[in-house]
Amino acid sequence: VIEPMLNHLPDEEFERLSRHGGALAESVRDLVEAVIRSSVGNDELDDVRAEVERLTARLRVDEVRGSVGIQSSRSGQLRAWGNPVIGVRNPLAPPLTVHHDDGGVWAETVLGSRYEGPPGHVHGGISSLLLDHVLGEASNAAGRPGMTATLSLSYRKAVPLGPVRIEAKALPGEGIKTVVQGRLVSLLDEPAVCVEAEGLFILPRWARERMASD
Amino acid sequence: VIEPMLNHLPDEEFERLSRHGGALAESVRDLVEAVIRSSVGNDELDDVRAEVERLTARLRVDEVRGSVGIQSSRSGQLRAWGNPVIGVRNPLAPPLTVHHDDGGVWAETVLGSRYEGPPGHVHGGISSLLLDHVLGEASNAAGRPGMTATLSLSYRKAVPLGPVRIEAKALPGEGIKTVVQGRLVSLLDEPAVCVEAEGLFILPRWARERMASD
Repeated sequence: VIEPMLNHLPDEEFERLSRHGGALAESVRDLVEAVIRSSVGNDELDDVRAEVERLTARLRVDEVRGSVGIQSSRSGQLRAWGNPVIGVRNPLAPPLTVHHDDGGVWAETVLGSRYEGPPGHVHGGISSLLLDHVLGEASNAAGRPGMTATLSLSYRKAVPLGPVRIEAKALPGEGIKTVVQGRLVSLLDEPAVCVEAEGLFILPRWARERMASD
Repeated sequence: VIEPMLNHLPDEEFERLSRHGGALAESVRDLVEAVIRSSVGNDELDDVRAEVERLTARLRVDEVRGSVGIQSSRSGQLRAWGNPVIGVRNPLAPPLTVHHDDGGVWAETVLGSRYEGPPGHVHGGISSLLLDHVLGEASNAAGRPGMTATLSLSYRKAVPLGPVRIEAKALPGEGIKTVVQGRLVSLLDEPAVCVEAEGLFILPRWARERMASD
């Protein structure tokens, strides 16, 4: 059974971890790119590694145990802090900010070296990661949240590293199954649709039961 | 046009960056998990951030510019160091080691908090990222390399965080188009097929021309 861990952090704690923890994650995104690119000497690589291990130990002095997928504040805010697409505290996430717009959703970001597959281009699986998430948000935005049941991707053009837009919209419908269509557009030159996606999202039983009992 | 950057590093340089750079990336994977989980105070979060920025600056004293997707040694080895699935120098990558086996390929890894979507479970888009890559490797393994043209995923069960196996095999065929089937299996309890995938891989024109001229 999948359920959010609602730990109801005090609002002040929630805000300060978003702000200071988010800033730390942002700095680690730069570190990740530097680790991929660096050609400094062995002694320097080893010394930086030892420093990284010390920083990790300092952070672990006080840490959440178990799931960190979704955390909540006492006043009811939810944040998917650790999410690998939108999580502001996850250095793997770009992170995307998903905006709602006229029944659909969109997000823009800049994809750098840490997302590179074919030389100079975004890994095809990274496109699918971002689209999976944004299509799910479109299902939410239509008032019909669900988990991915199927996802079909068509890769029209390789996506160059750089600025991209991801957008998605649910098709009209009702019930527990929602079909969503979306696409990933490169914004490096003239906007170019590079990947198209269609997904089927289904509201899981535990969520239906929870909604029925609320 | 997508072409590997073949920078033909001296073999000694190639080996030492794999080893020392790879160890550094591994330490940053632990740091990433600690950043997501830490609840230390604001001053400590800010101080760790400042230290991270100093480490990033030290690594940037000497760095590769441009694409780092695929690098080569003088003796002809290739490594996708920066790849977000298999790149030993990319802290985003688990990284997978893909093994060849009886015409197909497989890989096993343990997926932790940095890949979490639904609480306690792997983000659906992370499953698609890993499958996209492993299916592509199966196309390679069949002697018919290509880039992803289409990818269809069926999510049968949510994937719990923990050990997983990803496996794929190309269907019999010939020519520039290759159909590959694969799946992601949770190994947390009894092996359970959680996600099934089918992809079409097509050898791009530039690669066909290069192979014809070799």
